[in-house]
Amino acid sequence: METQSARIIVLGAGAWGTTFAQVLADVGNYVTLWARDERTAGAINEFHTSKYLPGVVLPRKVSATTTVEPLLSEADGIVVALPSDALQEALPKFLGLITEDQEVISLTKGLFHGQFTSQIIAEAWDRPRDTITVISGPNLANEIIARQPAATVVACPQAERAKRVGKWCDAGYFRPYYSVDSLGCEVAGVVKNVIALAVGAAAGMGLGKNTSSTLITRGLAEMTRLGLALGANGETFLGLAGIGDLSTTCTSELSRNYSFGFNIGRGLTVPQALAASKGPCEGVKSCQSVLELANQAGVEMPITESVVDVIKHGHTAAQMGERLLGRARKRDGVSIELV
Amino acid sequence: METQSARIIVLGAGAWGTTFAQVLADVGNYVTLWARDERTAGAINEFHTSKYLPGVVLPRKVSATTTVEPLLSEADGIVVALPSDALQEALPKFLGLITEDQEVISLTKGLFHGQFTSQIIAEAWDRPRDTITVISGPNLANEIIARQPAATVVACPQAERAKRVGKWCDAGYFRPYYSVDSLGCEVAGVVKNVIALAVGAAAGMGLGKNTSSTLITRGLAEMTRLGLALGANGETFLGLAGIGDLSTTCTSELSRNYSFGFNIGRGLTVPQALAASKGPCEGVKSCQSVLELANQAGVEMPITESVVDVIKHGHTAAQMGERLLGRARKRDGVSIELV
Repeated sequence: METQSARIIVLGAGAWGTTFAQVLADVGNYVTLWARDERTAGAINEFHTSKYLPGVVLPRKVSATTTVEPLLSEADGIVVALPSDALQEALPKFLGLITEDQEVISLTKGLFHGQFTSQIIAEAWDRPRDTITVISGPNLANEIIARQPAATVVACPQAERAKRVGKWCDAGYFRPYYSVDSLGCEVAGVVKNVIALAVGAAAGMGLGKNTSSTLITRGLAEMTRLGLALGANGETFLGLAGIGDLSTTCTSELSRNYSFGFNIGRGLTVPQALAASKGPCEGVKSCQSVLELANQAGVEMPITESVVDVIKHGHTAAQMGERLLGRARKRDGVSIELV
Repeated sequence: METQSARIIVLGAGAWGTTFAQVLADVGNYVTLWARDERTAGAINEFHTSKYLPGVVLPRKVSATTTVEPLLSEADGIVVALPSDALQEALPKFLGLITEDQEVISLTKGLFHGQFTSQIIAEAWDRPRDTITVISGPNLANEIIARQPAATVVACPQAERAKRVGKWCDAGYFRPYYSVDSLGCEVAGVVKNVIALAVGAAAGMGLGKNTSSTLITRGLAEMTRLGLALGANGETFLGLAGIGDLSTTCTSELSRNYSFGFNIGRGLTVPQALAASKGPCEGVKSCQSVLELANQAGVEMPITESVVDVIKHGHTAAQMGERLLGRARKRDGVSIELV
């Protein structure tokens, strides 16, 4: 039996990384956040506050640093909570400082040049991809930081690692479910942002819940088809990291992807909607990569395709709607053969 | 080839039956609604209005009658859109007036003494259950009556019947998907109301989207397990009649089941919440029957069980929450073996 308290480093002190640090601390672990600027680290250490989580006082077991390298060898687990487009630059500097018996946990949802985050981490740190645990679920940070009940999927092909990581974050209000399908979680985590953009666009056009539920359902079907083609387990998409996270993202006005889509739906251009966004939109960044992956895998993803046409080829939301409604009548379901 | 226009009788002139009549009329069919009182029939015939659909002017191809029997033999299709608890009384009087080559379409979601609506119709009219078509999906009447885009599942084990019925209602803005799994659609259509009650209760307690998405996801898992045990196709639950309808019902304040649960969540008793409801709550009526069916089938349905405890055994919403959060940590997914 390992001791109750683990030492865990969280790389990235944004809203979700900091919230997850609180979850870990609530279970009794010692958590150090790696922040890139002194001001963020100082606020956490001196005042137990973060500009990303207004009004929150963090537990004392959460500290922060800007020089994390000396601490890595002592850590039981390293959590990657960086923005997806920061991985390429940030990860290589830690190569050789993290060993295979340490747990590596990814909170970052991203697809870059056909590679999901766990692949990017595995290559950067020269460790097998199946040693990396992915955490994903219907997990809005603002609710979890308030310790409202939430459930999540802790997924690693090496099931014992998922269990170990799951115990670290089993905070009562935060409830882990185990899975070996980290790939499925990553596919769902990337595609859901593209679908949320489409759902937001429909809402911005004034369409109602029937339309948004239909887009969610057909979006679930297309992420499932992609996942199955890449070797993921279909059940993941029926679970918390699949429909759970998709449903949260597509019905939350807090979601930047939904809001971006909403602005497109009410007539803003892509540059205008980008300017109005409160931060980076993962769906805008990844839609083209998702479509390329789908084309390589021979999978039809009409919603994703229509989002790419809006983002990259100047289509309007109205054209998107006509296109999705104009498709031939199909059988209900997700099978590649049928849909 | 049959002619473009069919003659269709809709039994039941409530909001959904009348809305579906408009869909059928928009495709070019001649539709007669059977209303039980003269005033409802008169308003439709004279003013093309319905008290259930304020502000709406119905197409002229929709008429109404209180004596439908003489018309039945001429109809191509008969749509059942009665309240679930009116079936037992209303259906037997039409026995012998409807033949097997006519299409029978069920819009009514219900479970009564272990029997779903299509079984009740099949027995009452002495025809095989597999000749009955079920229509189900994310179909809020108030949006469809405004001709906003929506999709639905048209399901019949005899696929040619589903296709025939699907053509009758393929109105452009109303988009049919075909399926042979009418049983799965019926299971989903009944269980979703029970889950919506639980989701409403969580919202009434002030809990956020993470909780509601988790309940939707776990609710989807339990309706899928029940469906699989009864012989339905798992894919149906991933489709429009499954997660599509569940997601709409669980996120709509217009849903009576959600609203009933919301009132329980904010502290009302069951009689108080019933008194506050704008109409019958299917989830309240069917939760016990769903649980009995689950027990017979050996399927675990913890959310349904907790709803029954609230409705029948005086549990509070807070007890319900503790109970659902206190369950042992499981693997993510829906398999009977795993969950």
